[in-house]
Amino acid sequence: MTADLLFDPAHRELARTLHEPVADLPLVCPHTHVDPWLLADPEATLGTPAQLFVIPDHYVLRLLHSQGVALEHLGVPARDGIAVERDHRRIWQRFAERLDVLAATPTGLWLWRALRHVFGVERALSGATAQLVYDELEDKLARPEFAPRALLDRFGVEVLCTTDAVTDDLAAHRALHDQGWNGRVRPTLRADALLELDRTGWAADAQRLGELTGVEVTGHRTLIAALEARRDAFRALGAVAVDVSVTVPRSAPLTVAEAEVRVGRALRGQATHADAQAFAAHLLMELARMSREDGLVLQLHAGSLRNHHRAGLARFGPDIGADIPVATEWTRSLQPLLSEHGDDPALRLIAFTLDESTLSRELAPLAGYYPALRLGAPWWFLDSPGGIRRFLDAAAEVCGVANLAGFVDDTRAFASIPARHDVWRRVSADWLAGLVLTGRLDEPGAHRLARELAVDLARRAYRLDAG
Amino acid sequence: MTADLLFDPAHRELARTLHEPVADLPLVCPHTHVDPWLLADPEATLGTPAQLFVIPDHYVLRLLHSQGVALEHLGVPARDGIAVERDHRRIWQRFAERLDVLAATPTGLWLWRALRHVFGVERALSGATAQLVYDELEDKLARPEFAPRALLDRFGVEVLCTTDAVTDDLAAHRALHDQGWNGRVRPTLRADALLELDRTGWAADAQRLGELTGVEVTGHRTLIAALEARRDAFRALGAVAVDVSVTVPRSAPLTVAEAEVRVGRALRGQATHADAQAFAAHLLMELARMSREDGLVLQLHAGSLRNHHRAGLARFGPDIGADIPVATEWTRSLQPLLSEHGDDPALRLIAFTLDESTLSRELAPLAGYYPALRLGAPWWFLDSPGGIRRFLDAAAEVCGVANLAGFVDDTRAFASIPARHDVWRRVSADWLAGLVLTGRLDEPGAHRLARELAVDLARRAYRLDAG
Amino acid sequence: MTADLLFDPAHRELARTLHEPVADLPLVCPHTHVDPWLLADPEATLGTPAQLFVIPDHYVLRLLHSQGVALEHLGVPARDGIAVERDHRRIWQRFAERLDVLAATPTGLWLWRALRHVFGVERALSGATAQLVYDELEDKLARPEFAPRALLDRFGVEVLCTTDAVTDDLAAHRALHDQGWNGRVRPTLRADALLELDRTGWAADAQRLGELTGVEVTGHRTLIAALEARRDAFRALGAVAVDVSVTVPRSAPLTVAEAEVRVGRALRGQATHADAQAFAAHLLMELARMSREDGLVLQLHAGSLRNHHRAGLARFGPDIGADIPVATEWTRSLQPLLSEHGDDPALRLIAFTLDESTLSRELAPLAGYYPALRLGAPWWFLDSPGGIRRFLDAAAEVCGVANLAGFVDDTRAFASIPARHDVWRRVSADWLAGLVLTGRLDEPGAHRLARELAVDLARRAYRLDAG
Repeated sequence: MTADLLFDPAHRELARTLHEPVADLPLVCPHTHVDPWLLADPEATLGTPAQLFVIPDHYVLRLLHSQGVALEHLGVPARDGIAVERDHRRIWQRFAERLDVLAATPTGLWLWRALRHVFGVERALSGATAQLVYDELEDKLARPEFAPRALLDRFGVEVLCTTDAVTDDLAAHRALHDQGWNGRVRPTLRADALLELDRTGWAADAQRLGELTGVEVTGHRTLIAALEARRDAFRALGAVAVDVSVTVPRSAPLTVAEAEVRVGRALRGQATHADAQAFAAHLLMELARMSREDGLVLQLHAGSLRNHHRAGLARFGPDIGADIPVATEWTRSLQPLLSEHGDDPALRLIAFTLDESTLSRELAPLAGYYPALRLGAPWWFLDSPGGIRRFLDAAAEVCGVANLAGFVDDTRAFASIPARHDVWRRVSADWLAGLVLTGRLDEPGAHRLARELAVDLARRAYRLDAG
Repeated sequence: MTADLLFDPAHRELARTLHEPVADLPLVCPHTHVDPWLLADPEATLGTPAQLFVIPDHYVLRLLHSQGVALEHLGVPARDGIAVERDHRRIWQRFAERLDVLAATPTGLWLWRALRHVFGVERALSGATAQLVYDELEDKLARPEFAPRALLDRFGVEVLCTTDAVTDDLAAHRALHDQGWNGRVRPTLRADALLELDRTGWAADAQRLGELTGVEVTGHRTLIAALEARRDAFRALGAVAVDVSVTVPRSAPLTVAEAEVRVGRALRGQATHADAQAFAAHLLMELARMSREDGLVLQLHAGSLRNHHRAGLARFGPDIGADIPVATEWTRSLQPLLSEHGDDPALRLIAFTLDESTLSRELAPLAGYYPALRLGAPWWFLDSPGGIRRFLDAAAEVCGVANLAGFVDDTRAFASIPARHDVWRRVSADWLAGLVLTGRLDEPGAHRLARELAVDLARRAYRLDAG
Repeated sequence: MTADLLFDPAHRELARTLHEPVADLPLVCPHTHVDPWLLADPEATLGTPAQLFVIPDHYVLRLLHSQGVALEHLGVPARDGIAVERDHRRIWQRFAERLDVLAATPTGLWLWRALRHVFGVERALSGATAQLVYDELEDKLARPEFAPRALLDRFGVEVLCTTDAVTDDLAAHRALHDQGWNGRVRPTLRADALLELDRTGWAADAQRLGELTGVEVTGHRTLIAALEARRDAFRALGAVAVDVSVTVPRSAPLTVAEAEVRVGRALRGQATHADAQAFAAHLLMELARMSREDGLVLQLHAGSLRNHHRAGLARFGPDIGADIPVATEWTRSLQPLLSEHGDDPALRLIAFTLDESTLSRELAPLAGYYPALRLGAPWWFLDSPGGIRRFLDAAAEVCGVANLAGFVDDTRAFASIPARHDVWRRVSADWLAGLVLTGRLDEPGAHRLARELAVDLARRAYRLDAG
């Protein structure tokens, strides 16, 4: 069955034929949330089974939580002093006892694949087998061949980009650089910290940016200069992209004078919500201009309302699985940006949506016109077999496969990387088989597109093919 | 063919295997619009064929109307004195002559199944056979084995909840109670009458609530007290749930003082539209608090703009098929409610949407995090084979099957109950077969989920398994 | 393979059986953008291969442009004096070299079908074969059997409606009339020029309308009178429909006094954006009233934000592929219009959407109630195999096939007409085969619906069956 995983029974033979040549191609991972120290530190390990599969994985946490398992009982660190489970075997036991909620979810599929294919666990995980599986995983995780670097090789990762705050000191990436990794692991500048002028801590982050760059941030002009300097530092360590996450992807320029006033207020800790909204739309214009100039790919993740559960945020902080999508407007929101910069292929903007209704309605039509725009892979709640299938169905007819940005695994769960790519490649192969079997594509064309979807689109979209 | 109804040819054998063990499980009907007197009155009958299949069924009425058949010609009672068809044979004839509009609709499927499987009508219904079929139905409807109580047994209905206005005197349910039905037919408190402060009749309904409970409603505090007392009365007669239908599912608390002012204006017949909107959002918070306290499940049906056709409302009143969905925002709307109460499994909130784009984008992500929330079955325009299939595809990967609330048939058409459940069970079985055949689920898991989807999720969601 | 094009392998045999009898039925084309002079002028030809397949086809232009091909290099006339490619062989070469972007798109499918089936080109088009294919096409395009009139016969076009501005002099259609075409080619009144009061040129168009009708436009009353006179002129030349395209389909009446004030301002070139919005909603009400009175079908195309790329508009004008959809609200927007006129089958309103989320949520529920409303075919970005399939899935269960308006090819690419109809008929046959194979429809019913979908629904929706 594993050989035909995710292939429609009616397509099976052809899907297998299309999948086979791409199954073992290198993994290109231009957007992940992997901690760079996992690779920069030669002594790093993946920790305990609970640390690897449960505690930091908000895909898993949210589903267990939805069924009434308290996050503190899963070892999630709390900020308010309540007791948090420290016994990783107990955490693992609780996890194994509630696996039923993972049935038919991609999280369940990745887990099963990682246990079986990465760790060679043959025993089915359940409440009854939990401790035996823990023993087996613990044993393997202690071995050198399960160290992050060894797995990176075994997975066939060609390149992996991490996500790093604009205020990060990049020590891990400097270490990687000094160790001669030669661009295999690259940083990505995450600009979010600068976006929300009215956020507590904005001024401190702006000051920190000044310290890192030697450009004291006293207003808008110096803020932009410092950001440009920071981009250069990221590029020097191999970065190919910038990333920004917004709830609403609005773009609209401010005049220099307006921008100075609003940034000035923010530096004094007095920015209003209106300041923040206006500046976010302005910064998006600026980020596009900068990308057009320095060639860093601009990734735009939009439509997630972060930290929906206020009590959860107060107790546990962000990234507990409570970021919830909202309807997202792209057409009008990006019109200023795309009218100004969208015709120039020097800009590469990759847009990621959580609102499937925008695929055929907004993003694929936009990507099918503007040379600067590529449509990003299905993201977060949509990186499932069904989500990928609907993405290909909705987008490809409208903008062509050539305007897709390929796959990104977007993972912080290191062991799930191969499974995520495999799901994408399998669903792609099955989708292409359907096109061939209904006469819309010939077989050589399908083989070409299978390879494009597996690696070449991502390499090209992120300019990783340039050298 | 009937044996394989709704099974994809490529899944057929496995779908049949998965469906067979659940095909005859009891029917759990936690949300219907069945008139409780049909069961409380031992002499009740289902009336004429026109009364059973046409006059009160807005699924049928709207489609006939869309093709130019006037509602008065279908016997729908008018408020404005125009002539209404009283000859039920003529109504039936008109219906039978326009069956073509039902082709490929779920309404057509339920009709066909009810005629064939409930009433044993072998003859295909058409204009030519209309009177013969009428004869046959009329004859059968007069027999004791086609009385509502007899059919309830034959259908295998384990429990059936009706929908009853908060101002209903519950006489039917008291009669059922006194006859020893022992919870097989239960009331559900529909809170809508209290929701729209600016509605003509609101004050009268509030006064009626006071009379029913002995708590005179003089303001917000007493309104809440009366509502709580009414909930107790419903619970005493077996209610497990409250239901509320809103166009926009907004939640936001008022201060006690604000609430008193607005309710005060409503009691004097002076409430504004702004009062109504603010109070509706507040009442939703209160309903959640009450459910958390007394354990009644809170059903929230949102997104229907009632009575779209103003002339139709004036002439015929509501429920003529002219309630039309609108885009629905759930994420921001429910944030106050879920941030306050969503972490507590003592609250059970079941959300029903008419906006399919919210399934993967909002409701499944929310249900996949909050323990209080379950995702309600596809509703009204979406309770079709295709609608159910898209629902399972969009939701289950995101929130897991465990966070679905199972099926509700939502019917006022008594004879269609078994067909509706059968459609759900068949589409579920077919969907599960697809998961097995693509390697995402093993066969024992699929059998387990088939049973969950058929009855156990609904029993659990509505707390019908507790006693 | 061509025989089974677009048939699901699991449906193939039955789909073929359903398609075969409708494959060669006449083509009914009630909405196109074909230039009427192509048919009115007996000497007209389809021009060069570049003129036929590339330069005026914004489906093709946008995809080539998205991959970085400048529109001026494709021969698109520029307004700003930049150099534009005039060598059609070079344009063709560029096109052929970038065909990869058309893989898996409907544009690619139509192109392949037109080359093979209309022009008999056996050679696969590519950069290498571009000039040979050009030779072959050039040779054939010069022959009488490839003149537009000859192709109209060969395609089996029963009736073809063009789209003509309300200010068009209809000279081509008068010529057709005088040549005795007898309604085979008909004009359609496009009312857009009157819609946006604040558009530069509005007053000139209103004046032109006055000249054409002999009703001097001095305000709202005379504007309406002139429009009514112009409708009569279109009807006299065979028009069966009016068409209007709006971004937002809002309907709301103005008082006569308000309307006079706003139109008065527009005639003086002083209309505001608020004037324009209010008048557009008012004009939609008026257009519905007029259609109810004179029987012209009212087509409403909504949800496209025209000319998204401002620089592209400035340089090349409209229709370069940069019209991008936006989320569209139908339920509330059309409530005034449908409450006033929707119950009267004398009105025929056909609504076209670019927002797939509105199909099951808004348009199919509306079309399933109001006798005046039919649901228009999937349009622009959605007229693909997948788009058609999703349209049928989402709409038919909700409003029945009987409330669909059938297919319109909506094309300005003359040679693609048969391919577009064939795609619709094939996907319809495949969809119907699925219904039969899952027991939802019997085979005679499927044959009936295949014919309805292929021609009869369109004939009936556009009242082309009446005379």
